[in-house]
Parts: sequence; structure tokens; C-alpha cells
Amino acid sequence: MNSEMIRAAAQRLQGHARRTPILSSPFLDAIAGRRVLVKAECLQHTGSFKYRGARSAISAMDDAARAGGIIAFSSGNHAQGVALAARDFGTSAVIIMPGDAPMQKIENTRALGAEVILYDRANEDRDKIGDKLAKERGLTLVKPFDNPHVIAGQGTTGLEIAAQAKEFSGDVLVPCGGGGLTSGIALALATEAPGMRVRPVEPEGFDDATRSLVSGQIEVNAKTSGSLCDAIITPSLGKLTFPIMKQLCGTGIVVSEDEALHAMALAFTRLKIVVEPGGAVALAAALFHGENIEGDAVISVTSGGNVDPALFADVLERFGSND
Amino acid sequence: MNSEMIRAAAQRLQGHARRTPILSSPFLDAIAGRRVLVKAECLQHTGSFKYRGARSAISAMDDAARAGGIIAFSSGNHAQGVALAARDFGTSAVIIMPGDAPMQKIENTRALGAEVILYDRANEDRDKIGDKLAKERGLTLVKPFDNPHVIAGQGTTGLEIAAQAKEFSGDVLVPCGGGGLTSGIALALATEAPGMRVRPVEPEGFDDATRSLVSGQIEVNAKTSGSLCDAIITPSLGKLTFPIMKQLCGTGIVVSEDEALHAMALAFTRLKIVVEPGGAVALAAALFHGENIEGDAVISVTSGGNVDPALFADVLERFGSND
Repeated sequence: MNSEMIRAAAQRLQGHARRTPILSSPFLDAIAGRRVLVKAECLQHTGSFKYRGARSAISAMDDAARAGGIIAFSSGNHAQGVALAARDFGTSAVIIMPGDAPMQKIENTRALGAEVILYDRANEDRDKIGDKLAKERGLTLVKPFDNPHVIAGQGTTGLEIAAQAKEFSGDVLVPCGGGGLTSGIALALATEAPGMRVRPVEPEGFDDATRSLVSGQIEVNAKTSGSLCDAIITPSLGKLTFPIMKQLCGTGIVVSEDEALHAMALAFTRLKIVVEPGGAVALAAALFHGENIEGDAVISVTSGGNVDPALFADVLERFGSND
Repeated sequence: MNSEMIRAAAQRLQGHARRTPILSSPFLDAIAGRRVLVKAECLQHTGSFKYRGARSAISAMDDAARAGGIIAFSSGNHAQGVALAARDFGTSAVIIMPGDAPMQKIENTRALGAEVILYDRANEDRDKIGDKLAKERGLTLVKPFDNPHVIAGQGTTGLEIAAQAKEFSGDVLVPCGGGGLTSGIALALATEAPGMRVRPVEPEGFDDATRSLVSGQIEVNAKTSGSLCDAIITPSLGKLTFPIMKQLCGTGIVVSEDEALHAMALAFTRLKIVVEPGGAVALAAALFHGENIEGDAVISVTSGGNVDPALFADVLERFGSND
């Protein structure tokens, strides 16, 4: 796993993944007390950086494996990224999703041409179902983060940040679940923009990455459900992602769920982008945890693959008018 | 007024106005039955293309005029565009706004450093107040659309469309109020992408541009208030904008307010952008008036400078889940 793989992934993604813009607002700068640059990955195809990783992994397969079809586990953004990337290549995708995943996510994944197989989280073993299917049908698994080509694809976000914000140095705040995006950006910046330092951001109660960076070993979350930031909730960092983060990242930042929702509302009113709670944690850290951040400019990565309109309406009512 | 002025404006805006992305979604393509490309001007500084025109006009002034300060009339997006552009140049801006303009717009304009003077729409003459102030203080007026440098600045949107979507030909749908954006894009495309044709889009009941293109003379709206699409409601096209549109534009398209709100909701769920009703009319035309549109690809320009969170919450409740 090295930055050369990220440059190779960028070449494979050229003309397919969007080069998302970096946005800013003087109103957000005023709240943060410094310049805040927002890399708007919510504008990526399927609404999140997951498409970069999925397309990178599928494009790196040999032709026979790719033609045999793809399989993935996901309750949301990775599902859609894999579905679209598989469709791009004219191959099939089977996505194993929990039966209680939001209907919108399931429907989007199906609408992108994937076969969705629902399982019962309480009584069925996802991995067993997946292994059986993969063997029976000759499918190739694309993991959501602990796969070098997925990390490389997600890391292309970092190459773009280095090019788009090259005059700045300081902290780059990244929403962190399994660490694919975080480690990929960290690897890219280590060679392309050594003045920038990646800081993972997590919601309260699901701060395994922050604790792992303190203890020096992979820590686990006590629970993996019950957060509005569901898009970035995983049991733990991955075996590939953690060592990269341990070597390259600064300490983690933990934000409250209300801070994430407030950041969603500010992204709406000030940047005109739609961000899901998990995708808003890094912006929340930039806005509300400035005492813990270094640098004149702070770059917050956002994504917004699946925003429940009812939740969004509530968030706007609570936070939409108070800044 | 010619396309050379637009290229000159683009040079003056280089590094200041954002080159906004063109977004798309397979879900929107499916609704429209063709490819729909959306030029997301809602991601421009201050949330709309008005910044392009304001900065173009202020940058084209001689130093003495600019240093003497700027004055503008506006109830919203032009106000913020002028305020930010004036601040960019370190000069002062006075914005005459109606006292019943939404508080958010007034506050944003003030927060960008402008002096806001409120007037009573019913009992006071805006132009008299403005003329008096301009004379007393030596301010230079920047009109919202009927100014060649404003048209040239707004027309830089067209140069970007020509470069970003050069493989497509067909209709380019543009939200139309006074016609600055419409005529500017039409001029830019006439030389840069002659296979594209600009079509102005308006809300029902405020279709003066559509009628003007039919009759061949400037027609007037019966009323200029009472629409959620307030951002694009003007009494009529301008003396500069209409002749350009008459020469270069295809027929107008008129959409219902509900279609505009539905397009707002789809821009939210499918493109992850926040668009105001007036900025969504062109997307509404692309999605719901396809029988009236030519070309494989349709390019809809959006803007979203001022979205009332309460309105948006209502729109999401009505339209957020039904596609």
C-alpha cells in the first residue's frame, strides 16, 4: 500500500469519478475563526467517496474476475458505489444488505442495477450468506475499506485536495469509519502535501479510531448501531487502514451528534450542499472544536449519500435559522 | 455587447468566481428520458451566478469610480453578489432593499459588509432614494442585469458550459428573470458551442420573456410579487438583454410552481444540492417538459442563493420521498 497505488487509481478513475469542488463561505470562516475549506464529496457520483473506492477496485480486477460479477456487503453508500461501478463495466453486482436498511438505500441500489439480497441482522450470518453466494456464482468480493485498491481509490480525494488547496497547510479533517478514506487521504498527502496532517473525526460513543490512535492498537466500538451517523459506524478500523493511520495521522476528534446535525444545517444554508450526519462530522469539528485544530485553513471532507428527507426537515427546523 | 466582452470578463473573474461543476444523476436521466446535466451555480460564491455579474462590473470600473463606492437595488441575490464583490475590492457598497425582504437576505448582505438601506415598497420610490444617495456620496450604480459588464460576467457561466459539456448539443435551459444570465450564456454559446441553443424558463404567471420572444417586443408581467420563484421575478426583460435573446434564443418554457418545488426536492435527493424555487425552474423544465425539448442532453442551470429552511422542509415533506 503506497502513494503510487493512489496515483494509479487516479488514472483509472480519470473521466469517471468527479473531481469534486472545494467550497467555502465567509460565514463558516467567521464561526470557526479561521478559513474552512470543504471538499464536497457529497457531489461525487452516488453521493459519496465510496464510488471512488468501488470503481478503483473493480477497474483493478483482471477481466475474468470482473466479468464473473461482484459481491459486496453494505447498508448504504458502499452498496451504491459498487452498484454503479459494476454497471459502468457492464458486469453484475450482488449486494448483501440488512433487511432493516432504509428503503431509500435499498431502492437506490436496486435502481442502479444491482441484485440486492436482504438478510436478518439478528438471526442470519452475513458473511456465511456472502461466502456461499460468492462460491456458487464465482463472484469477487469488494470490501468497503480493508482492500488496497479501495483505499487507493478513496485516497484520490487526497490527491485532489493537495492540488486544489496547495497554498494551505494545517489539519485535514476526515470523517472516519473503517478508515479507508482517512488512510487513503493520509497516504496521498504524505507525499503530495506534507504540510497537511490528517485528523480522523468520529461521533461520540463510536470513537474507536480516536482511542486506537491513543492506545496504539485497534480498539473496538461497544455498539455499532443507534447513531444518526450510521454511514461511518463500523466495529473497528481495518488491518490495512490502522497501520497507515498510526503512522501518518494526528489525534482523533470526537463531536456530538447535535454538532454534526448543526453542521448539516450550516452546510445547507451556507454551502448549498446536502450532507448526511456521518458526512458532516468533520465540518462539525472544524466549526466547533477549533481549540483542538492547527493551521490557518482547515479542510473538512463531507459526503452525503443517503439523507432521510424527514430527518433533514427536522434538522432545518432545529438549526436552520440560528446562524 | 459581444462574446469578446465575456472572454474579457472571464479573465477578470479568474481565481475569484468559482468554476461550478456540472452534476448529473441516472435517476434524473430516467425521469427526463434523456441525459440531464446540471450546471450548479448554487455552489457559486454567495449562492448564485449574481456574484459573477457583480464582480465583473466592479472589476471593469476605473479605479476612481470603484474607490468611490458602489450602489445597487436588490431584494436578494444581486445584493449579496455586489456586497461580496465590493468587499473583495476593499470598497464600500450601499444596497437598497425592500423592508419586507426576508430577514435572512438582509442579514447576509449586511454580514458581507454592505450598508443596507431599507425602503417601503408601497410608499417610497426606490429609484429616487438611490439617485439621491448616489449623487450625495458619489456612488456608482451596478444594475442587476441591464449592464453590459453584468451580462458579460453572468455569461462566463456559458463559457464554462461550452468547455465542460463540449460533447453535447441540444437545449440549454436557463432560469430567466431580467435576462442577464440567459442573454450572457446565449452570447457565449453562439461562438463557443453553436450546437447548443438557449431556452429561457419561467414560472407560470410570470412568463414575460416567453411572450416577448413570441411577440417580438418586450412584454411586461401583470404582477411582480406573489411567487415562490421571487428570485427570478422582474417586471420585464431589459433593453440590452431582450435584443440578444431575440436573436439567439429558442422559445421559452413555462413551468408550474409545483414543478419547480418538485425539482428542488429532486436536486436535494439526487444531486445533493440546495436550490431555491426560482433556480429550480430550468431543472423542472428538463424533467417535466421533455416533449418540448430538443437534444440528447439538456443542460439546466440552477442557483440557490436564498432558501428559506421552513419552505425547504415543507418541500421535502411533499416531494422528498416520491421518486
